[in-house]
Amino acid sequence: MILTVTLNTALDVTYEVPALRPGEAHRITGVHERAGGKGVNVARVLHELREPVIATGLVGGGTGTSIRTLLGDLRHSFEDIAGPSRRTTVVVDGSSATGFWEPGPEVTGDEWERFVARYSALLRVARVAVLSGSLPPGLPVDAYARLVEVARSAGVPVILDTSGEALAAGVAAGPDIVKPNAHELAVTSGMPVGVFEPGAVELAETEALAAADAVRNGSRTAVVASLGPYGLVASTPDGRWYARPASALDGNPTGAGDATVAALARGLAYRLTWPDRLADAVGLSGAAVLAPIAGAVSLTDYQKLRRGVHVQEV
Amino acid sequence: MILTVTLNTALDVTYEVPALRPGEAHRITGVHERAGGKGVNVARVLHELREPVIATGLVGGGTGTSIRTLLGDLRHSFEDIAGPSRRTTVVVDGSSATGFWEPGPEVTGDEWERFVARYSALLRVARVAVLSGSLPPGLPVDAYARLVEVARSAGVPVILDTSGEALAAGVAAGPDIVKPNAHELAVTSGMPVGVFEPGAVELAETEALAAADAVRNGSRTAVVASLGPYGLVASTPDGRWYARPASALDGNPTGAGDATVAALARGLAYRLTWPDRLADAVGLSGAAVLAPIAGAVSLTDYQKLRRGVHVQEV
Repeated sequence: MILTVTLNTALDVTYEVPALRPGEAHRITGVHERAGGKGVNVARVLHELREPVIATGLVGGGTGTSIRTLLGDLRHSFEDIAGPSRRTTVVVDGSSATGFWEPGPEVTGDEWERFVARYSALLRVARVAVLSGSLPPGLPVDAYARLVEVARSAGVPVILDTSGEALAAGVAAGPDIVKPNAHELAVTSGMPVGVFEPGAVELAETEALAAADAVRNGSRTAVVASLGPYGLVASTPDGRWYARPASALDGNPTGAGDATVAALARGLAYRLTWPDRLADAVGLSGAAVLAPIAGAVSLTDYQKLRRGVHVQEV
Repeated sequence: MILTVTLNTALDVTYEVPALRPGEAHRITGVHERAGGKGVNVARVLHELREPVIATGLVGGGTGTSIRTLLGDLRHSFEDIAGPSRRTTVVVDGSSATGFWEPGPEVTGDEWERFVARYSALLRVARVAVLSGSLPPGLPVDAYARLVEVARSAGVPVILDTSGEALAAGVAAGPDIVKPNAHELAVTSGMPVGVFEPGAVELAETEALAAADAVRNGSRTAVVASLGPYGLVASTPDGRWYARPASALDGNPTGAGDATVAALARGLAYRLTWPDRLADAVGLSGAAVLAPIAGAVSLTDYQKLRRGVHVQEV
């Protein structure tokens, strides 16, 4: 069983409007809701792949009630908190998507300790732990570092996918894999990672791998950086790789990073080789880009894209 | 006790952002939530005035859970439905407010019958019933007409504040008072109601009173139309009036109409004269305009503004 952790679970709401006009009132023509937060998205992709998974984390309030309902048949074991889970709202019209991100609930020290106890118990039956997304207000910046340490003590491999200070603090605790995107990689390494655009891809890949080496800094932590439509670079204790899709895909990039993490978690659980893990990750990420709804990957797309991935050791 | 009915109860959410930019993602710097829907707002104003009130209507889903929590010490007796209560979201930046209105839940025939039974029971202890706001999807267009008839059979006076087809159908059932605004008055009467702006106020008042006469059409239903900052006109079986504030007020017009209805409901409950009801309504509406939060009227503002109202019989 793979355990996914979402500390800042979200009710993801999409509003359709004919045209967004600042300063005006809009009657919404379509409302869509799903349970979200990056760990929930990872769990949903693994569930699509028929992989045993349990989603844990924190939920609360009326939004928490909606999130539990929307999880459907995904297995979960969330800790209840008093503050309401955040909402994310995306307003789409014909030409653009405009997002509004709530910061999330204030989590108390007691709630956090109760969650750590639940997480420790779940780890007893987990093959891999996945820690994803932002920290809600009230949690210490080293919250992920603590969860990494608890997993390591339990002998469970752990993947961390977050950003900013939470990423920097978490890396220091020695997770098995971190998965920054190009922007997070540049921020965390303090090194330039060029813009990925046709004609400059090779230079940007080289820079990304150098930045990944710097973040890894000789440690046991593999750094797998997602380069959007151009694939992945990986700096690991076992080698360094580029993994490139057959072609860059057009579609909805939301959820592609979570699909990458889902593939890496499965690769850890089954002790796949790095080239296999990376090819799986690029293929699954591509299938997520093609999916009309984030998380609802098509197995056919995945298998087709997987065959086209080129993995190169550096 | 005054009974307020809100069939399309709402979770009113306000998001503060530094600047709204279509097509971009925004981190929200402030989130505010309240229980809303026009009947809930009327109940809140009456509760501020220490008037015994019970809020009823329909609530459901995770938003319904939040609404119940946010009602605080306001007495309520809502019917639970399966569909989630709607959200209204207003995004405010320094210069504008942009609104997003969800349509509301699909209400089943069974849920509607259960609500009518609850409403009938509550009417036994009500002095006045107030029916406010839009109808959620699934309810028949004559839903308010039915609630008016049930109240009349129970001998309870009833005020209707809605718009469009629901207003037209409801008026036909003979409520004691309807309270359209100038726009709804023009739509319902099919007559012109001019723009209220300095220099044209008297002409617009004359047109509004003629349109109110047309909507009343000799019936027992008093038509009290709110003219925004310029006060009210009333066409009633007992006479016709203008009620004007001492001066037009600057502020937040949200909730002013609900404060007007709250004053009219209290006037009905205590059988006040029409001039007293109308002066109360203009004063309370002004206090709502001055309130920083809709519904949180200041009794001091109300009493001061009330003294300045000029009521003129026509």
